[in-house]
Parts: sequence; C-alpha cells; structure tokens
Amino acid sequence: MIRGLLSVLFVLVAVAVSSSLAKPEKNIAKRGKRIPQTLSRGWGDQLIWAQTYEEALYWARAQNKPLMVIFHLEDCPHSASMKKAFAEDKDIQKVLDEDFIILNLVYETTDKHLSPDGQYVPRIIFVDPSMTVRADITGRYSNRMYAYEPSDTQLLLSNMQKAKKLLKTEL
Amino acid sequence: MIRGLLSVLFVLVAVAVSSSLAKPEKNIAKRGKRIPQTLSRGWGDQLIWAQTYEEALYWARAQNKPLMVIFHLEDCPHSASMKKAFAEDKDIQKVLDEDFIILNLVYETTDKHLSPDGQYVPRIIFVDPSMTVRADITGRYSNRMYAYEPSDTQLLLSNMQKAKKLLKTEL
Repeated sequence: MIRGLLSVLFVLVAVAVSSSLAKPEKNIAKRGKRIPQTLSRGWGDQLIWAQTYEEALYWARAQNKPLMVIFHLEDCPHSASMKKAFAEDKDIQKVLDEDFIILNLVYETTDKHLSPDGQYVPRIIFVDPSMTVRADITGRYSNRMYAYEPSDTQLLLSNMQKAKKLLKTEL
Repeated sequence: MIRGLLSVLFVLVAVAVSSSLAKPEKNIAKRGKRIPQTLSRGWGDQLIWAQTYEEALYWARAQNKPLMVIFHLEDCPHSASMKKAFAEDKDIQKVLDEDFIILNLVYETTDKHLSPDGQYVPRIIFVDPSMTVRADITGRYSNRMYAYEPSDTQLLLSNMQKAKKLLKTEL
C-alpha cells in the first residue's frame, strides 16, 4: 500500500518536474546562449561520470571498481540539499575519484534491481563489479533504505568503504 | 559473416577507445582542473540533450516529437568529421532544436532495434514517438544503411523531414 502510494507520488513528482523543466528551456532559448548541460549535474564537476547504466557497468567490470548510482530530481529540495553536501565533501569526492565508477540519473532505468524498495529520490545504490546490486549497503531510514540526508555523509563514506570490499566471485 | 566481423571490429574499437580514454583522464587529473563533461559531446552545445534512451523515449512520447539517436565514438575519425559538419549546419541544428528529442551515445544500449544492420559508428537512427524505430529512414550506403558522411547533410535534413511525419497510431 505504502509502496503503491510511493509509486504514485514518484509519477506525480516526475510529471511536475517534466513540466517545470520544459519551461526554463524555452526561457533560456529566448534569452540567448544556453549553458551546455553537464553529466555531473552538480554532484562533482571534477569527477568523471558515466552517461548510462550500460556504460557504468562496462567500466565497473573493465576496471574492477564498485559503481555508485545516484537517483535524484533537479527540483527536489531533498536531492538539492544532499547534492550540496555531497559535492562539498572532499573525502567523498576523493574516494569516488580514485576508487569508484559513478553515475547520476534523473530518470529510472528499466532494471528493477536498482529500486529494491521503491523509486524514491534521492537514493544511492552500490553495484559490485560482479554485476550484483549491493542491497545490503543501506542508509539509516527503515522506510527508504537507500536514502541519505546531508547529515549522513559519514555513514555514506563508511558505506563506500563497504562497497570497496568487492564480493568474491566464483572461480 | 560480415555482420560477425563487424561485431568483432566494434569490440576491438571499443577496447581501443576504452584504453585510450583511460589515459587522458589521468593526465588531466595530474595537470589540474578538469573541464566538466557535457551531454552534447560537441554535436550541438546549444541543444537540449537527453542523457539516456529511457529518458529520450519518455520525452518523445510526452512531447509527441520524433527522436534522433546518434551513435558515435570519441576517437573515431569518421565520427569526428560527421560531428563537425553536423554541429556547424545551422539548418540541422535549428530543426533539431524545434522539432526533435535528441540523444547521442558512445555506448550501445541493450535494445537490438537500435542496430538494425549492426553496431557501427557513426550511425543515426530515428524513433517515432509511437516507440517504433524508423528502420525505413536510411542514408546512402547499402552496407551501412544508417551511416552518414559530412557530404550527406542535405540527405540527413531530408530524412529529418521524413521522421517529422509521424507514424499513424491505431485509434
């Protein structure tokens, strides 16, 4: 029931975002030169971001590094405050740069493994290079297990350390 | 047989690209500040690009506009010369801005409909907002039906006009 409500809420948020996104585009077009869109979307302009989940999985396997997938929405205040804390945290940014493949998405993928307890935002999911979603690496909220708030950056860092301990693959 | 060879060739190209891509990243990191990656990748910095195929399909349906998907590779000279002609062609850029949803990808999707005759680059595929891949809209090369060269911009423009005539969906 709650999950159903969350899905409905997500669709409503997505619709609201799409209508609000459509307007600024046209405004910018009328005003003059647009600023090229970036793949980082503000989550770390100095990091190398994958564009798609397929690309991210390719890099995770090729480099044997864990993958962090961030789901967010551009006009969601919870996403915005988490993004600020995330981008300003030098430890998080350094570990990501050295040891992770990273992807941020504003649209859900078709892979249901990436939404173990629903399609809310912001939500951070780790994926092992063996292609296994690390559903065991969770935040502190029992109703949204993969959500993080700005005060959770230490927990996120410790979860990143967990993700770096790769799952043993069968020989 | 030829298709098999093309697949092998694509994998080889992808491996070559991945190894050559890995190096500049590290060099840039040592030299100092990185330039944030853009979604346009030089195919039209002033256009609004979708990030993923899922997002592009969502926008195509929501806005009832045809979708153009460009497959390319960053260090493929044919992709580079086509990109230059494409980005500099004001007519193409104007029609795309007004009437199309656009996506450029350097990694293949899992959807085989997007590679009707193989996974070569550069390759331009149109998708109708009814979610139908327009396999009927082709370039001038019988061995790579969705390839375009810099001298083909007029043909591409005329194909864009074809894609704008949307398929009739059942009532």
